[in-house]
Amino acid sequence: MKNADFLTGITPSGTPHLGNYVGAIRPAVETSKNKDLESYYFLADYHSLIKNYDPKLRKQSALEIAAAWIALGLDYNHCVFYRQSDIPEIPELTWILTSLTAKGLMNRAHAYKAAVAENEEQENKDPDKGITMGLFSYPVLMAADILMFNAKKVPVGKDQIQHLEMTRDIAARFNHVYKKLFILPEVVVDETSSVLSGLDGRKMSKSYNNYIPLFDTQKRLRKMIMKIQTNSLGPDEPKDPDTCTLFSIYKAFASESETLEIAERYRQGIAWGTMKQELFEYIDNILTEPRKQYEELIKNPSDIDAILKKGAMKAREFSVPFLEKIRKAIGIESLS
Amino acid sequence: MKNADFLTGITPSGTPHLGNYVGAIRPAVETSKNKDLESYYFLADYHSLIKNYDPKLRKQSALEIAAAWIALGLDYNHCVFYRQSDIPEIPELTWILTSLTAKGLMNRAHAYKAAVAENEEQENKDPDKGITMGLFSYPVLMAADILMFNAKKVPVGKDQIQHLEMTRDIAARFNHVYKKLFILPEVVVDETSSVLSGLDGRKMSKSYNNYIPLFDTQKRLRKMIMKIQTNSLGPDEPKDPDTCTLFSIYKAFASESETLEIAERYRQGIAWGTMKQELFEYIDNILTEPRKQYEELIKNPSDIDAILKKGAMKAREFSVPFLEKIRKAIGIESLS
Repeated sequence: MKNADFLTGITPSGTPHLGNYVGAIRPAVETSKNKDLESYYFLADYHSLIKNYDPKLRKQSALEIAAAWIALGLDYNHCVFYRQSDIPEIPELTWILTSLTAKGLMNRAHAYKAAVAENEEQENKDPDKGITMGLFSYPVLMAADILMFNAKKVPVGKDQIQHLEMTRDIAARFNHVYKKLFILPEVVVDETSSVLSGLDGRKMSKSYNNYIPLFDTQKRLRKMIMKIQTNSLGPDEPKDPDTCTLFSIYKAFASESETLEIAERYRQGIAWGTMKQELFEYIDNILTEPRKQYEELIKNPSDIDAILKKGAMKAREFSVPFLEKIRKAIGIESLS
Repeated sequence: MKNADFLTGITPSGTPHLGNYVGAIRPAVETSKNKDLESYYFLADYHSLIKNYDPKLRKQSALEIAAAWIALGLDYNHCVFYRQSDIPEIPELTWILTSLTAKGLMNRAHAYKAAVAENEEQENKDPDKGITMGLFSYPVLMAADILMFNAKKVPVGKDQIQHLEMTRDIAARFNHVYKKLFILPEVVVDETSSVLSGLDGRKMSKSYNNYIPLFDTQKRLRKMIMKIQTNSLGPDEPKDPDTCTLFSIYKAFASESETLEIAERYRQGIAWGTMKQELFEYIDNILTEPRKQYEELIKNPSDIDAILKKGAMKAREFSVPFLEKIRKAIGIESLS
């Protein structure tokens, strides 16, 4: 089996929303169909352990996210689609990498530093208050996710660039100390990937609770879209598309010519009610078929299990022999 | 399979010496024969990754240590004797525990604090200079070693009490957050276990390079014993047994009556040369048979592999279903 050309993970810690679709799922689904690429997609359930301690939520979220990817067209027969927790080689590699990662590297991780800064702001005596080893050391787990499949390219948002640099550092250290087994993954910053605005105009995100679920009923989708904040300009008054949340969401879904057409209608003074209805219809149209499939999948979780198990088997065709090589390089092998 | 009553590990990072025998191997071998106890013994090769980066040394040391335990009578058919690296459930549990361990707990670990103190003493700008994530987080790995088998009692030296307390903390946190699955292990501080003196009178230790290998040739064993430092008192001058390294080593091996007899001969002025010869003969007599077996085992490493593989199978009869329970409790299970 070949090294991964492309690898990306999603943490099951909530319900998939329109922002996930535009930012992560849609581009990944496209890549999954490229027959020239060996692409890997995984549900990062070990990562989700850091973010919440609710077992039901974790399981439900894994179910919904897996169903969403499949319903939205992930080519799981061609690509490698798996749960991180089905690959026991990953935590093992995590420890191997932990043993030689400099603590100073983790001290400099943004997420950790932000948590410390928050403690300092709140004048907590202990700057590490409430910080777990999971939060502190998850860049090592992330390095293991990537290096386990020697992934060449890892598409990341700008906030993730540092993690990729850490992965490269850790890989280089292993290569230097033991044996040159790891490819240093290339950081692919996806400049074009759209960041979707949420109900309140800020980035759509679970943390802001301003998101529109991907697969709610048609009725609730409409209701959510009607909630999107707009300004108080009346019907027929010309409107600026570029400062409007409705427009930015429309743009993330529509073609260029459709987007230009709507922009023109903004300048002519489209009513907010009309625009909301058009936005709803546009998105609903895209989601109608996937929604049916999604609902079917949610009712048959064993089908999802079967797909993920098959994916894990494919992934382990790579990870099992590769870990064997890694173990040999560090002197953990048969004694004879 | 029952929870472990008793669990102990040894890190393969050197050649087994007389100090290891007296301090760890001998009492463990005794316990391994107790048919009322489910006792676990393991080669801690994941821990050794922190201490050295030499794959050949790691493998050679694992071979020698395993051979030593077997040759000295470990009842491997009754007890569970395995390599840590043959139990993939251990690194997985390590990550699960990592995700909920407070970073503050690790900040307070003695080994880490000592390394920081050394950096500060040397006026290094970075107090974490040269410190790996392995050194920082190995108490979590240790917790996983113990909790994976729900060990009731873990015999430790005084320097290890803190680690056991950390294991209890981590177990209690898991039990509180998810489900009461873990027994809080009891710390058994082995007050009686002998600390053997080395060639220079300090504690016999690889770090001081003052040790006598367990299984060298008879000739070299004699040569090493002849090197033990004594004072300059001549033959026939009365000598104090209680300040003498030779006596303290003799005492660690001999019976009480033999020890009393030698103490009397000290007061009568035994010559150092005579005492060294007697000490050599005493220890050599104990080691003659095990030495033969050891040499035989070293020549047949596949026999050791087979014993360890069998032990790993026994250990995994516990760890595989137990990890399944743990995964269920945290919400990592089939989606159906």
